[in-house]
Amino acid sequence: MYRGKPGDGGNRVNGTVYLVGAGPGAPDLLTLRAASLLECADIVFHDALVNPEIVALATRAPKVAVGKRCGKHSTAQQFINKRLVDAARIHNVIVRLKGGDPMLFGRAQEEIAALEAAGIRYEVVPGVTAALAAAAQLGTSLTQRGCVRSVTFVTPRVGDGEAIGEWAASLAAADSGAIYMGAGQAAAISVALIDAGKPPSTPVAIVENASLPGSRILFGTLATLPQLADQAMNGPALIFVGPQFRARARAATLVPERADATAHGGR
Amino acid sequence: MYRGKPGDGGNRVNGTVYLVGAGPGAPDLLTLRAASLLECADIVFHDALVNPEIVALATRAPKVAVGKRCGKHSTAQQFINKRLVDAARIHNVIVRLKGGDPMLFGRAQEEIAALEAAGIRYEVVPGVTAALAAAAQLGTSLTQRGCVRSVTFVTPRVGDGEAIGEWAASLAAADSGAIYMGAGQAAAISVALIDAGKPPSTPVAIVENASLPGSRILFGTLATLPQLADQAMNGPALIFVGPQFRARARAATLVPERADATAHGGR
Repeated sequence: MYRGKPGDGGNRVNGTVYLVGAGPGAPDLLTLRAASLLECADIVFHDALVNPEIVALATRAPKVAVGKRCGKHSTAQQFINKRLVDAARIHNVIVRLKGGDPMLFGRAQEEIAALEAAGIRYEVVPGVTAALAAAAQLGTSLTQRGCVRSVTFVTPRVGDGEAIGEWAASLAAADSGAIYMGAGQAAAISVALIDAGKPPSTPVAIVENASLPGSRILFGTLATLPQLADQAMNGPALIFVGPQFRARARAATLVPERADATAHGGR
Repeated sequence: MYRGKPGDGGNRVNGTVYLVGAGPGAPDLLTLRAASLLECADIVFHDALVNPEIVALATRAPKVAVGKRCGKHSTAQQFINKRLVDAARIHNVIVRLKGGDPMLFGRAQEEIAALEAAGIRYEVVPGVTAALAAAAQLGTSLTQRGCVRSVTFVTPRVGDGEAIGEWAASLAAADSGAIYMGAGQAAAISVALIDAGKPPSTPVAIVENASLPGSRILFGTLATLPQLADQAMNGPALIFVGPQFRARARAATLVPERADATAHGGR
């Protein structure tokens, strides 16, 4: 399945770089394909935030932590790109392991462009994105037939020298939204979305460390979002906005609701 | 991990219903958790469109095809709900297997509401949604740092007696979009998005049967979308709209590009 392609003439055949989604965090939310690639990887370059239990599945590969948590992003990205290209000239199976899914806020395109420029074969292995793991945990569908027909995934983060995007307007125009990497900017998000036309009473949910044992769920409204986010600062957090989060917010308080299991209710 | 909870007093302990995402189609894009649940399932209720190879992983369970392809949707949904509740009173591990992810256009909420009303314990197991598998295959990230910061997932489908939603405006307000279950309405989608302000020259990609061997990729623009969709009618298709699909559309023609492998380029 992960067979190589014949090279041009007698040239050295490069290895293949697999850009692999590690999923939201829980090791068993990895795909079967990702697990089997990790098992046969010759080398793994992983985001620093990927669960160590998942990285450890690559039993025979050296593991190199790259990306995220690095101060100088653009330099770091160029460095990662070079490492991938260099590795493909030595190894057969190179795994670039990214949190969630590579194609949604995963910066995969920059690595793909570098691989294409260098003529390196690559394959993207999709993963479970954090918002879907968080929705599973909430027991609340991101879309609902007849009433919530669109969901916008945004990030308010901007790189150095980038203009502030139209993210707030995009989200305000949709029936619901999931905000990635936004917990640190909750006050600005609250203001921006209310300015963009969302009522301050719009229900909000925050899911921190989705799918992991220490996960927490907080409910509130756009107006109370800043205070909610202050309590959810121990790990990656998703912010959800939309009418469907009202049902789960019936008992909403500023007291975090412990989500020590992903299973719901029952009697 | 999938332990039951003590019942109330001496009452019969109900089983647990697992609403499981089957992923986009390729059997190895199933999560490890989904695979292990299928292996230990006592009964499986699966969407008719889920890949039979995935359903077959439930070696010891009777398999019941439900939902989709049924004419009378609301009646069918109520019937599914009842089947799940009844099954939880007989079996321990009930798997409700849905294409893609249960919480994104998966109608999970209707089943969750029925389970909650009946006091049945449930758990949602997220899956790889079709748009992410399609993006992997395209080699094109749905978001791109600095230029494509939002992506809206919509469906133009409406149930009987439902009002037409604001889906076109939602998508037009985002930097990019993924349209589920829209290939049959491509002409209306093209008109609606152009009316909502997207230029007719906006790049478009269609991915049919994402992740499966017979998958096809078609490139074009909003203006040519109806003709493109006419060629992509053999299976479930995702329509993508956004500037990032331009790069892959350099050689865009109305001739379908065969995508018989998920791996890209290399020399």
